[in-house]
Amino acid sequence: MKYQRDILKNVEGYTPGEQPRVPGLIKLNTNENPYPPSPKTLEALHALTLDDLRKYPDPVSLRFREACARHYGVPGPEWVIAGNGMDELLALVLRTFVDPGDVVNATYPTYSLYEVLTSLHGCALEYIDLDDDFQLTDAHYTAQGRLFFLTRPNAPSGVAIPRADVERLCASFPGIVVIDEAYVDFSDDHCLDFPERFENAIVMRTFSKSYGLAGMRVGTAVARPELINEFMKTKDSYNMNAVAQAVGLAAIEDDAYVCEQVGRIRATRERLRKALLELGFSVPDSHTNFLLAYCAPEPGAEYLFQQLRQRNIIVRHFKSRRIDNALRITVGTDEECEALVAALREILAG
Amino acid sequence: MKYQRDILKNVEGYTPGEQPRVPGLIKLNTNENPYPPSPKTLEALHALTLDDLRKYPDPVSLRFREACARHYGVPGPEWVIAGNGMDELLALVLRTFVDPGDVVNATYPTYSLYEVLTSLHGCALEYIDLDDDFQLTDAHYTAQGRLFFLTRPNAPSGVAIPRADVERLCASFPGIVVIDEAYVDFSDDHCLDFPERFENAIVMRTFSKSYGLAGMRVGTAVARPELINEFMKTKDSYNMNAVAQAVGLAAIEDDAYVCEQVGRIRATRERLRKALLELGFSVPDSHTNFLLAYCAPEPGAEYLFQQLRQRNIIVRHFKSRRIDNALRITVGTDEECEALVAALREILAG
Repeated sequence: MKYQRDILKNVEGYTPGEQPRVPGLIKLNTNENPYPPSPKTLEALHALTLDDLRKYPDPVSLRFREACARHYGVPGPEWVIAGNGMDELLALVLRTFVDPGDVVNATYPTYSLYEVLTSLHGCALEYIDLDDDFQLTDAHYTAQGRLFFLTRPNAPSGVAIPRADVERLCASFPGIVVIDEAYVDFSDDHCLDFPERFENAIVMRTFSKSYGLAGMRVGTAVARPELINEFMKTKDSYNMNAVAQAVGLAAIEDDAYVCEQVGRIRATRERLRKALLELGFSVPDSHTNFLLAYCAPEPGAEYLFQQLRQRNIIVRHFKSRRIDNALRITVGTDEECEALVAALREILAG
Repeated sequence: MKYQRDILKNVEGYTPGEQPRVPGLIKLNTNENPYPPSPKTLEALHALTLDDLRKYPDPVSLRFREACARHYGVPGPEWVIAGNGMDELLALVLRTFVDPGDVVNATYPTYSLYEVLTSLHGCALEYIDLDDDFQLTDAHYTAQGRLFFLTRPNAPSGVAIPRADVERLCASFPGIVVIDEAYVDFSDDHCLDFPERFENAIVMRTFSKSYGLAGMRVGTAVARPELINEFMKTKDSYNMNAVAQAVGLAAIEDDAYVCEQVGRIRATRERLRKALLELGFSVPDSHTNFLLAYCAPEPGAEYLFQQLRQRNIIVRHFKSRRIDNALRITVGTDEECEALVAALREILAG
């Protein structure tokens, strides 16, 4: 095929977690929320008319961004951009602030999408290893790239580094620091105050996890207005459809609902972690809606993954350095987690 | 602001047509369909459940693409990619087939978004003028760029060049030829057979015009599977939300409804064209849902645009070479078009 860019010849594209539609499947592999989104999101969906579908949507999603600004405690909508999922904003941040050929930094391990996005943009992703406790090291504070992707809390470990370390990184890094807060609602603190304090900080949020809206594709980024202005140039003109704007607005305005679901998931997470520790797994303290469970060398993660699969339970197994003997397990409902623990107990008993 | 890319310093971003929400406004500026989309689209929207919002959507929009392939008469879904509006696919085609620094060709005049997209991608857009009848010339057949954007029917003139000329262009051009068929449903023929006949042809469609779904952001591209495969690498993982997939599917399956609306719009278009000719405008024969009405030098297009605006009628006026003394008028309902003609008659009578 002679038309493609050379840059694509060795790119495989991102492999999303499997989405099999098998009845009775216990699906703990893509960190979706086990609970439905707020009933108000469905009301907002059902309130839409044929005329809402017919007309172009607001190209800048103003009402939704105003609600986000209020919720996030930033001065106004000019501090927020809305995207067709956080994925869109992660791709846009490269197209806005990084030239092809530049170096981008990230911790290792981290969200595997960053590597796909930097390859597609024609720039190099230089990983800097987190220490054994998934914390930053001196090497992170001397990184010199154009942009730093920092997932906090970290995926896939679930660990949240101290805010003071993020401050030190923002102060020391010469380029943009993207603080990917995809899972932050399951954590104890956040960094939404960073854009006001650091001119190079961009905080990103998704509605796919705590808000339970993975199907709607809604994400946001928070940064100083001069950065948001540049983002606005590079996004597609009408990047969020009318439905995503309406549903996202309904979701963020029903804060009480999200808090309740998050509370349930956090409680289940602690019970699941305790059970996994009792089964002999090593599990970092998680600030997310998943746990990274390190297995004993025998029978090993790959075996457990396959055995669980045969029992109609899907978790995630990454064949990557440092995490290849671990399972990443989404915190599902109590019943789903109990079924998982029972299955693991049975498999380990052999 | 020190973080943005140099490439953005002179980019203003695309300026979408105005979307004022003024009661009683006659809005003939953004080529939306004056009629609502099929009632089946709203049924599909209302049939969605909280669980559809909760789970990640199908990353490759398979059911929707299967329906498109049947409708388009191409061998299968591997010949089709679905996008978050055709805008997304126009940006993606550059990221997939054009390196920064390459030359991209387009006719002049054409859709103004191409220039924004090529600037953002860091490549040069070289325009080649259409002749006075908005037809291709020998210069088009000797173009040597990496990609050619061909809007057929042309925007903003509404003229459709003969299919034989598109064949000649595909055969002579060394790179990808994007045949932008945004308005083709209002025309007499199309080029959906071109991908099977030309390895470099990509046909693009939008659901914003004939299907009346501008608010949903649904677009497609049709090309050989080896080209679609490359597209799939560069798109965002979940580029179409669950709602857009469901609503797009309902729309394309209700062909009879679209045919009826398109028939009404074409009839109105011919009546409106006749009335504009009688008022002294020069109006190319249109194969779209808009007309480009060239004005007499006095009082001129800018004056008419402002006067119409004062009467709560918005049309589009481009301050660009060759079209700056014309108004681009969307074909609305009969009543809207009659109000426009009456207003023009009054303004011209002075």
